[in-house]
Amino acid sequence: MYLNHSVVTFNCTMSYKRKNRLPLDSYFQGILNGDKVILSQAITLSESTLSEDQELATALIDKLLPHTGNSIRVGITGVPGVGKSSFIEALGKQLTSQGKKLAILAIDPSSQKSKGSILGDKTRMEQLSTDSLAYIRPSATHDTLGGVANKTREAMLLCEAAGYEVIFIETVGVGQSEVAVKGMVDFFLLLMLAGAGDELQGIKKGIMEMADGIAITKADGDNIKYSKIAKAEYTNALHLFPPSYSGWYPEVHLCSSVTKDGIENVWNMILKQNKFLKENDFFNANREEQNLQWMNEIIIDQLKNRFYSNDDIKSKLQLIEKDIRERKISPKNAAMVLLQSYLKN
Amino acid sequence: MYLNHSVVTFNCTMSYKRKNRLPLDSYFQGILNGDKVILSQAITLSESTLSEDQELATALIDKLLPHTGNSIRVGITGVPGVGKSSFIEALGKQLTSQGKKLAILAIDPSSQKSKGSILGDKTRMEQLSTDSLAYIRPSATHDTLGGVANKTREAMLLCEAAGYEVIFIETVGVGQSEVAVKGMVDFFLLLMLAGAGDELQGIKKGIMEMADGIAITKADGDNIKYSKIAKAEYTNALHLFPPSYSGWYPEVHLCSSVTKDGIENVWNMILKQNKFLKENDFFNANREEQNLQWMNEIIIDQLKNRFYSNDDIKSKLQLIEKDIRERKISPKNAAMVLLQSYLKN
Repeated sequence: MYLNHSVVTFNCTMSYKRKNRLPLDSYFQGILNGDKVILSQAITLSESTLSEDQELATALIDKLLPHTGNSIRVGITGVPGVGKSSFIEALGKQLTSQGKKLAILAIDPSSQKSKGSILGDKTRMEQLSTDSLAYIRPSATHDTLGGVANKTREAMLLCEAAGYEVIFIETVGVGQSEVAVKGMVDFFLLLMLAGAGDELQGIKKGIMEMADGIAITKADGDNIKYSKIAKAEYTNALHLFPPSYSGWYPEVHLCSSVTKDGIENVWNMILKQNKFLKENDFFNANREEQNLQWMNEIIIDQLKNRFYSNDDIKSKLQLIEKDIRERKISPKNAAMVLLQSYLKN
Repeated sequence: MYLNHSVVTFNCTMSYKRKNRLPLDSYFQGILNGDKVILSQAITLSESTLSEDQELATALIDKLLPHTGNSIRVGITGVPGVGKSSFIEALGKQLTSQGKKLAILAIDPSSQKSKGSILGDKTRMEQLSTDSLAYIRPSATHDTLGGVANKTREAMLLCEAAGYEVIFIETVGVGQSEVAVKGMVDFFLLLMLAGAGDELQGIKKGIMEMADGIAITKADGDNIKYSKIAKAEYTNALHLFPPSYSGWYPEVHLCSSVTKDGIENVWNMILKQNKFLKENDFFNANREEQNLQWMNEIIIDQLKNRFYSNDDIKSKLQLIEKDIRERKISPKNAAMVLLQSYLKN
């Protein structure tokens, strides 16, 4: 029953031609075998806007579902200049040197415009990009942040089915994308620099509140003393926030991607929180909530797409937009008129 | 035809009892007469979640529509500590001393939780709160930022119909609310402090890009020299962004709410941009786009409400959420199944 959704058609912009696709089972087996090329093709399939691609991708993800969920999902954020790539490279290499398979995904809401401003350039992580245990995928492009996030979630599941035990989801420090990442990871790591002014705390409060831990980067050389002061300040600041639902208290650690000092401590914090969440049953509860949230995001996206691709609405929209422009009708009333017409059909 | 939307019922939480309401024409006349009490009652009506209140509010706003749009709409943002209240009070008093009627609204996405953390306390603007030419209204509370923004837009139209010539929409510096405010004003003013570290620029880039102008506050006493340096830096930074659609180049001004120096320059910048936009026809084009955007936001809100209040969906949702929790179905497929069921009905 579940796989039959013939009535629901995805709204597609037919701007891309459908490439040659593999049969469902080839994707399925290839991913279970950890084949990076097939994994990449499957992620591309899931990012396609064609309805037949979407049906295939949905079927694939459902089929792979029992093989997903076995990774530690870590969101990583920080302002430009904080040293995100270097940190990911330093921590990532430690993990792969222990034989762990690591996938690095990204959420970049600006990727539509800039065609992938983060992770587009694999040379940012020179060592990881040639590491057989690492898989790096740039941000999906989509009209909306919700769309980008949705595709990243699918890529995450596909990577998990392909055996990746740690997933990093990198984001840029601009607020909205952090909320999206927080909604799909187990641990949300905030990278900070020493020496940030007080006024910085205000704007970052929302992001600091979401953090499960803070890593103060570039804590090397002369910068160590400032980093220690920053650590004390951030630790104090974190104590001002109400405790998280899980009862986990965020920790602050110093690290350097140059000397590699402290990188392991950051990872140990992530493992510690992971254990803590699993012991108090919050781990699964959190993932379940995230899945429900994901379902709701898709529903809203689809309701929207169906409305605006309705032929009657398309034609009425032009007329009513004209009336709005000429201030013959308020936007609110216009919305009601269109909804009334849509619901009658 | 437009006022008849009997088929479209608003989704209401019946948690509030309906207060005694005035007849449509009493609101209409009271507002046109500039009666502050009736204006406040009308804004409260528009914020009500009851469907009969919503129908009345929609009818009222449509009836008042020809009397709206005649104000200068200014969005004002800045991190906590930048001196927003003092700035608004200083500029506001200058405007009312020239006989201008000024309304001050707020968008605070956290107002649901904190019951209005900004503008809840009128004592923040001691002089304006007792000024007969000023009208101060705290942020609407709503489950979503979209809901808060929608209600603020309605309040803005009601204030305009009541003769307010300048509308300030204040927001907190957290990213998402800025985008909402930018979508409803003619001029978006960013308040900044001198001495912000370089790393601050990164996180603020998105907000700086939206700004039509920057006012560096607290430029008095010893701080003047730092403020001048900051002015040069921000001016340079603004030049790095692509020019706005309108062709307007944002300006940076120094001001002090204590000495009142420069406050007038900030207002003159707003007037200059206003004139510029009107001369190149961008003023109306921008407002028209904002109205279309507003309509679309209401449509999406309503589509969502109707889906989740559908009885069949409500009962199916419980079952399918259980299946998601038990990982029997992917969130994506679950969304498709529910949509299929909804569309069949």
